[in-house]
Amino acid sequence: MTNCTCGAVDVHTHFVPEHFPAYIGKGTEVPWPSIVPAQPCHRHVMVSGKVYRTVSDRTWDARARIGDMDDLAIGAQVLSPMPELLSYWLDADDAAVLLRYINEEIAALVNNSAGRFFGLGAIPLQDVRHAIAELDYVINVLKLSGVEIAGNINGTPIGAPEFEPFWAAVETWNAAVFIHPLRPTGMDRIVGPKNLEQVLAFPSETGMALASLITGGVLERHPNLRIAASHGGGSFASLLPRLQHGWATFPNLREGMSRSPSELSRLLYFDSLVYEAETITTLMRRFGETQVLVGSDYPFAIQDPDPVGRIEQLSLSESHRALLLWENAYRWLGISAGG
Amino acid sequence: MTNCTCGAVDVHTHFVPEHFPAYIGKGTEVPWPSIVPAQPCHRHVMVSGKVYRTVSDRTWDARARIGDMDDLAIGAQVLSPMPELLSYWLDADDAAVLLRYINEEIAALVNNSAGRFFGLGAIPLQDVRHAIAELDYVINVLKLSGVEIAGNINGTPIGAPEFEPFWAAVETWNAAVFIHPLRPTGMDRIVGPKNLEQVLAFPSETGMALASLITGGVLERHPNLRIAASHGGGSFASLLPRLQHGWATFPNLREGMSRSPSELSRLLYFDSLVYEAETITTLMRRFGETQVLVGSDYPFAIQDPDPVGRIEQLSLSESHRALLLWENAYRWLGISAGG
Repeated sequence: MTNCTCGAVDVHTHFVPEHFPAYIGKGTEVPWPSIVPAQPCHRHVMVSGKVYRTVSDRTWDARARIGDMDDLAIGAQVLSPMPELLSYWLDADDAAVLLRYINEEIAALVNNSAGRFFGLGAIPLQDVRHAIAELDYVINVLKLSGVEIAGNINGTPIGAPEFEPFWAAVETWNAAVFIHPLRPTGMDRIVGPKNLEQVLAFPSETGMALASLITGGVLERHPNLRIAASHGGGSFASLLPRLQHGWATFPNLREGMSRSPSELSRLLYFDSLVYEAETITTLMRRFGETQVLVGSDYPFAIQDPDPVGRIEQLSLSESHRALLLWENAYRWLGISAGG
Repeated sequence: MTNCTCGAVDVHTHFVPEHFPAYIGKGTEVPWPSIVPAQPCHRHVMVSGKVYRTVSDRTWDARARIGDMDDLAIGAQVLSPMPELLSYWLDADDAAVLLRYINEEIAALVNNSAGRFFGLGAIPLQDVRHAIAELDYVINVLKLSGVEIAGNINGTPIGAPEFEPFWAAVETWNAAVFIHPLRPTGMDRIVGPKNLEQVLAFPSETGMALASLITGGVLERHPNLRIAASHGGGSFASLLPRLQHGWATFPNLREGMSRSPSELSRLLYFDSLVYEAETITTLMRRFGETQVLVGSDYPFAIQDPDPVGRIEQLSLSESHRALLLWENAYRWLGISAGG
């Protein structure tokens, strides 16, 4: 595989475009994003007149990103939209316009990067037909590697039956999927500051979303899907032994699940963004050393500052090290040997 | 410790009384439980005219329970109410009547058991003043070991400020606390049969509830609390590294948390009800071999059929084996050496 000498692939990095187009739709009070200047090298992403997040120029600036990548021994980044940009709460026609713009911005970065960037697009899953049309464009026209989706679409988990045509299209077009938490469940159980949303509710949300892919039959019906989960799958690994026991104990949980949850779970990929070497080892043991990918959340405040160093701490064999640092990522992205 | 020769202590077993008193309150359409006959050796627990659950006579019959305990090398069981009986949704005055009855039934079993049963009572936490009064009765009059509580009270997590007087009373009276999931968050993320509630939403709920004890400052303010979590703490162990990273990264999460989440989490106890030897080992390593307790969910369908066997599989040293099988349980229950 010619990519093997290029360094690690960081599959969990986010992108925000430097500008947004003006809203030209028919709605009023639409939470359409815009960008305004902030402190040096930063801009505010504004939504509905308020600062949603202040982001650094690293969210769009290829040169700054590549400088950081060189410092961190990252050969390539997989770019995915800042999750809030997925825009499931917009009217689907409005979202289609916004996401098309973002997808083309990502494609431009990828195409000018000499192989340093891969891209995941965004699709308006609030309307499955629109989403499949944009998936077609993302994969077959822009030639991105796949799409980022949230674990729920306006509250509906991604294993729900209504998303079946989407999963079938993903499998047909061999797209990679990256699942990221967004507007998570469980916020009613948080005591403390607002940023506990991403700290506590995000991993809980992802755990439930991945479980829905199993209990909803998606992985059984589409075993060729290549789905990666952010944050090491969140709480999913901790839910799995009980789901396995439930499946073995209750006949009704085996209807539509001829393969066990443990077996199906090993079809999934998991990024290494768990902030702890031991948990990465547990992911490798539970899901297979072919299923773990480097992820950092670059360039956001919660990022792992040295994702490759964390893998190097594990003292892996050379073959397992190559799997984790790049081979698994290329397989997940659908890039074959020599590609 | 004279108890050491008595066999394992199963801290997670449930109790339902053989009968319930008739409702004599002032409400109408109150979801007050009752019991009616079912198949041999079973009865239906009825709530609001419907079968809530069909339970075997083992939920109240001491002789049947002790027979099973002897078969499973269980020296003692800790009895706690079937969680649905905690009745937080009843008017507090009604709940106080029901829970007093249940607490006295548990005490009767404990007092007639020659040491084979310990008891945890129920308290009406929908009204903290009522709850503290019943806690006083449970601990100081009935001499039970502590109380079972849910991870949320009608949606409010147990780390919320309104429960501060309760935690202060628990610490003052040296009561053990067992946290069990009930009416969990995240039900909107489940795809599949109803019993996935206990399989998937229960552990997610418990993870969030335990996190609220840390982010809400309960463990920092009351380091002498002896709190055990059911189902190995659910997803809590998987949330902890990210909570630790968030605490180290975001200054606002360190306000009111002078000790780190990882350090505070080692004050908690966790039952072994995770259906997998490796996860028990992970609990021991993360939280300390002094913090893990045998738990089975006896006598419900989801129970671990051989909780002691699962510990024996771990091939522990004799001293660690004694910790897991009984010493940790006696320390959690507040029973001192020779007690």
